[in-house]
Amino acid sequence: MKFHPTFKTGAMATALLLAFATTVQAGTGPTTISERARAIQAKAINLDTHLDTPALFSRPGWKISDRHSFEQDGSQIDYPRMVEGGLDGGFWVVFTSQGERDAQGDLKARDAGLKRLSEIREMVAANADKFELATTADDAARIKAAGKKSVYISMENAYPLEHDPSLLSFYYKQGLRMISLAHISHNDFADSAGMGVAPEGEHGGLSDKGKAMIAEANRLGIILDQSHASNTVFDQMLALSKAPIILSHSGAYDVFAHSRNIDDARIRALASKGGVIQVNSLGGYLIDTGATPEYREEMRKVYAAFGGQRRLSDAERAQAKAKIAELDRKHGIRTADFDDYMRHLLHIIEVAGWEHVGLGADWDGGGGVEGYEDITALPKVVQALLDAGYDERQIGGILGGNTVRLIREVQALADPEAVKAALE
Amino acid sequence: MKFHPTFKTGAMATALLLAFATTVQAGTGPTTISERARAIQAKAINLDTHLDTPALFSRPGWKISDRHSFEQDGSQIDYPRMVEGGLDGGFWVVFTSQGERDAQGDLKARDAGLKRLSEIREMVAANADKFELATTADDAARIKAAGKKSVYISMENAYPLEHDPSLLSFYYKQGLRMISLAHISHNDFADSAGMGVAPEGEHGGLSDKGKAMIAEANRLGIILDQSHASNTVFDQMLALSKAPIILSHSGAYDVFAHSRNIDDARIRALASKGGVIQVNSLGGYLIDTGATPEYREEMRKVYAAFGGQRRLSDAERAQAKAKIAELDRKHGIRTADFDDYMRHLLHIIEVAGWEHVGLGADWDGGGGVEGYEDITALPKVVQALLDAGYDERQIGGILGGNTVRLIREVQALADPEAVKAALE
Repeated sequence: MKFHPTFKTGAMATALLLAFATTVQAGTGPTTISERARAIQAKAINLDTHLDTPALFSRPGWKISDRHSFEQDGSQIDYPRMVEGGLDGGFWVVFTSQGERDAQGDLKARDAGLKRLSEIREMVAANADKFELATTADDAARIKAAGKKSVYISMENAYPLEHDPSLLSFYYKQGLRMISLAHISHNDFADSAGMGVAPEGEHGGLSDKGKAMIAEANRLGIILDQSHASNTVFDQMLALSKAPIILSHSGAYDVFAHSRNIDDARIRALASKGGVIQVNSLGGYLIDTGATPEYREEMRKVYAAFGGQRRLSDAERAQAKAKIAELDRKHGIRTADFDDYMRHLLHIIEVAGWEHVGLGADWDGGGGVEGYEDITALPKVVQALLDAGYDERQIGGILGGNTVRLIREVQALADPEAVKAALE
Repeated sequence: MKFHPTFKTGAMATALLLAFATTVQAGTGPTTISERARAIQAKAINLDTHLDTPALFSRPGWKISDRHSFEQDGSQIDYPRMVEGGLDGGFWVVFTSQGERDAQGDLKARDAGLKRLSEIREMVAANADKFELATTADDAARIKAAGKKSVYISMENAYPLEHDPSLLSFYYKQGLRMISLAHISHNDFADSAGMGVAPEGEHGGLSDKGKAMIAEANRLGIILDQSHASNTVFDQMLALSKAPIILSHSGAYDVFAHSRNIDDARIRALASKGGVIQVNSLGGYLIDTGATPEYREEMRKVYAAFGGQRRLSDAERAQAKAKIAELDRKHGIRTADFDDYMRHLLHIIEVAGWEHVGLGADWDGGGGVEGYEDITALPKVVQALLDAGYDERQIGGILGGNTVRLIREVQALADPEAVKAALE
């Protein structure tokens, strides 16, 4: 929709102009948030199931208690912005980029995973007045009531467990309650969905090691996350897992045919088994941006010239952004926006039923689109769901209630003896 | 010495009476600390090389930032008492009690070690205004200058590495800079010195796995700690290690013939290779207390009735103490005191030379004697060293300078490529 500001003087005019600047574009979503939307969010437990923010914890000078801006440093989650956007917490990810699958690569991944796990716990320890570790379904409401944000821990890519899968028991002790097996390429556990068109499988879905990991996750009540794995892995995981599963950050293949999205038939199968799908906001998975392999290679080089995407200074980030913008013009790249995100979300709610849908926007992991740049924009989703006719109960489920139910169900199906032994 | 207070009125009289009450007993050390002693401590870097305090970090409600008392909760180190006693930091121990050496025991130990390592880092994260992680020789002075306490990390008993010795690389990344191989019983790496009379060896000193660990520690610049291992391990470690070694908390066998102490010939051999011995204050290693195996078994049962020594409530601790006092009377147990501690310390300085001696009092790990109950008593050692005729330079070395030198030497002998790879 168009936004017609009434020009006023002074600070209010500036505020309106700023609002205008960021919302005038079509496709960027609601420009005002109703009281009702605010009230629904205040009552709901707002969880995002895929927060890649832990990748920033070791960035020199970056503190979760400071307010940052996406524009300036590219980050999308911090405590002040969580408060502003009404996010009560979520699953904070131990992510490991897939590297070499030899002995040395596996050891490096093992160390990197354990280090990230420790970083998440150190962040909570350093901010005990703002964050609290969450491990059970009830923790989310309790921590919200205490005025803090919940930190559930998940793992994206089980590469750190290739060297020694028995380390899962340690991760569990330290709070891990969700795990995905593979990232953007195959590993020892499972075939990946790749990054556009699904690559040929290596294991025909899950390897034996992957199947064993599923059994062990079930035993401990760790939620299995299929996001990034292949469709065959989806089918096998759904068949093998004794507990419902999650897609922590995925989109709808029937809206945009990308190998990271999941088709309607599988969405229905997921829901019929009690699972949930949490909708991703990564632009390249939402629409056909026109990105070609050549474009991606040129973009990779831009970041490589700065020594990688994660460690940029604010100045380097600005330079990189300018170069990417130039690349985008050259290649005619289209940019996804808030409406594109809602198109996936609303389609998935339609197909799965609202009880089986939630939010996993891939913040700080590539997520975010025009009009939905960081977590402060979360209320827009609530407003858009209201505008689409969903009620308080349904929206509360999508914002986090469904995830809480899943945590409860998966943990109820765990082996109590195994849980007791693991926590000793 | 005897203490003859001059009675005065008011606060001064009270202070003197309090001083009298705690120091009237013979053997409990200096009753006043001179300005010179205070000045020497203020200038020195005061490090204790064996702080078992991390065992308390998971005790419910126990916070290192609170002031506790040994009388009330049995603890000996916390931030306020470190400030009072002038301790600038030290090596904080990842200690694991030796359990079963089967696959399951090894896994439990692996998880326990990693958890303790994380707890140490979480303590530092939660108290960043008071503590800082230290990994190099220069860190100690830098952190003291910044008004904080240094947290070097060490491991007592390599049991957590039995399942997978390659985990050492992760410990190193996270800050580990000292390691001992065995505790009070043999394990896969080395023979133990046991708890009184040395038991028969299992490996004839070091196993092949133990020898490999020595090579790896040398490569990374991790200080090798012989405390608790057998005399044969001492001889082999000294011969094999390319870097000088430490005895992080040991006493003099020629003062009291206990298998946890080391004889003069070995002290001289240690010093001749540049090593240091840090003197322990655990009473049962300092004098013949008269404790028999029967007494120890009865004491064990007292604690076992409360579910172990570590998790006692203050009330349970008081009850246990009363029962132990009763046991002590029944068995005619003698109690070590400050003078007994100084007897070991002064003997070892005599034998090793002051450049090769330091303090590793086993605080929160069984250390402490009458008149030297917690870290607030540290200035007494400084005073006693002054009284014994040692000068500022010598005392500074003993308080921590010698340890700093050892850290520097061991790290200088590391393989720079290995260090670089491990820190990547």
